[in-house]
Amino acid sequence: MKLLSYHLAGRDTWGVVLGDGVAELAQRTGHATLADFIASADFARRDALVVGLKADAQLGDIRFLPVIPQPEKIVCAVRNYMDHHQEVLAAGMQRELSEEPPIFLRVWRSQTPHNGPIVRPRVSETLDWEGELAVVIGQGGRDIAEADAFNHVAGYSVYNDASVREWQFHAKQIASGKNFESTGGFGPWMVTADEIEPGRQLKLVTRLNGETVQSSHTGHMIFSIPKLIAYASTIFTLVPGDVIATGTPAGVGWSRKPQWFMKPGDVVEVEIEAIGTLRNPVVAQD
Amino acid sequence: MKLLSYHLAGRDTWGVVLGDGVAELAQRTGHATLADFIASADFARRDALVVGLKADAQLGDIRFLPVIPQPEKIVCAVRNYMDHHQEVLAAGMQRELSEEPPIFLRVWRSQTPHNGPIVRPRVSETLDWEGELAVVIGQGGRDIAEADAFNHVAGYSVYNDASVREWQFHAKQIASGKNFESTGGFGPWMVTADEIEPGRQLKLVTRLNGETVQSSHTGHMIFSIPKLIAYASTIFTLVPGDVIATGTPAGVGWSRKPQWFMKPGDVVEVEIEAIGTLRNPVVAQD
Repeated sequence: MKLLSYHLAGRDTWGVVLGDGVAELAQRTGHATLADFIASADFARRDALVVGLKADAQLGDIRFLPVIPQPEKIVCAVRNYMDHHQEVLAAGMQRELSEEPPIFLRVWRSQTPHNGPIVRPRVSETLDWEGELAVVIGQGGRDIAEADAFNHVAGYSVYNDASVREWQFHAKQIASGKNFESTGGFGPWMVTADEIEPGRQLKLVTRLNGETVQSSHTGHMIFSIPKLIAYASTIFTLVPGDVIATGTPAGVGWSRKPQWFMKPGDVVEVEIEAIGTLRNPVVAQD
Repeated sequence: MKLLSYHLAGRDTWGVVLGDGVAELAQRTGHATLADFIASADFARRDALVVGLKADAQLGDIRFLPVIPQPEKIVCAVRNYMDHHQEVLAAGMQRELSEEPPIFLRVWRSQTPHNGPIVRPRVSETLDWEGELAVVIGQGGRDIAEADAFNHVAGYSVYNDASVREWQFHAKQIASGKNFESTGGFGPWMVTADEIEPGRQLKLVTRLNGETVQSSHTGHMIFSIPKLIAYASTIFTLVPGDVIATGTPAGVGWSRKPQWFMKPGDVVEVEIEAIGTLRNPVVAQD
């Protein structure tokens, strides 16, 4: 099942994808947000809830919102693909693999939805793409065991952890370059976890203006999804709707010779097998 | 004026400190939270609003909450005191000063109030103190100029950016060690900005079980409050109630020989001149 958040007729709402359309579920279920639904007992009954539903709007008529518009937490893995790690070394950066997952945090305000603009800030031209698999947390918890971690996944989505490289490298802490407003593409929807076997290797492709710039698969991850969930939940309680962005594979613009960055007028797409394609136009900050 | 968030009679609320007591302001003003009040036009009329008010509870009868219980953003400066930078170098770490402020993010779930427990997690015994001046943002904005930055400060408070050092150093990204649940002390109240002249040098003292472990002043900051506000607001829109923790001075336990960490049963206090004293007992994770 594909679940999504969107704006229609002056209202932020959420629903289910049915063919080329959507059926609104906020009013039908009484859950104001998709995160509220995921947190409720209704989430386990979702198949029964949508039986016989028909689309009440076309996908082309809605304005997408980030799948979870305001996650309490957005935990992002750094350097989590072996192929990306190798390209960074090849580009001359000295980095060692750590024994535990390197993570940073995004704020929800840095997100942008499917078809929404990725905004290149005035202060830098080094805006780079990072196609990533996003995990949406279902049942929350603290100190979740790796063996139990997949039971805490509500679904999967696509993230573009777009990064302002100059600011990322102002200091050792990369949060600044990873949190510019309206840079983190998140969408178009989440596919519920029942449709994707735990640990399944998913093809991930990023295209800039139609040209493939990243082509890899989630089997290259260094720290697995269960490890990331266990690690994060050792630090804090995960709650329904929390997002874990699992890191990007090889092919980012920063590591290319010559370097290649996104500029206003570009269109970037991240496609992940069995989930869908996240598309974002790049615009300049006003 | 000292404003605070607290719990009393089964309800989370906020109010003003009057001598040894507090007067509740949520119901009187119609603003559900202190952040809502700061965001409102009433904040500028706060002096008139409290004229003639009498305390309706004693400070000893309330349960403090973090001054802003759920800030949208908690932006933390790293290595922002010259005396701390020097002690870290002396401890053998190779670090260079960056030209721009190194920052990381905390999640609100990592906060703990005045008198609330700082929880040492099961996974590490390297829980360290970091007394800090906290800035609470008033009027929000993006791309705030340094020259205008103090106009965006609602008030000042005290933070203990308590850190789990082992986890902080799992990788170059320190967010993991800085976000353990119930570690970031924040309180007891905020003093409104009108009472503290912009740029005033404030004495900061941290005590562990009564023994002074940090004794410095905010004049040692490397990046000023206006610089931190300008930098953060270049990345994202600051909103009322956002918090900027401005970094810690020399004297942390990690840099001592021998190293010294907080353990269950300890009491840590951070006192900042003209603001007050934040006190937290240290307990073990259940």
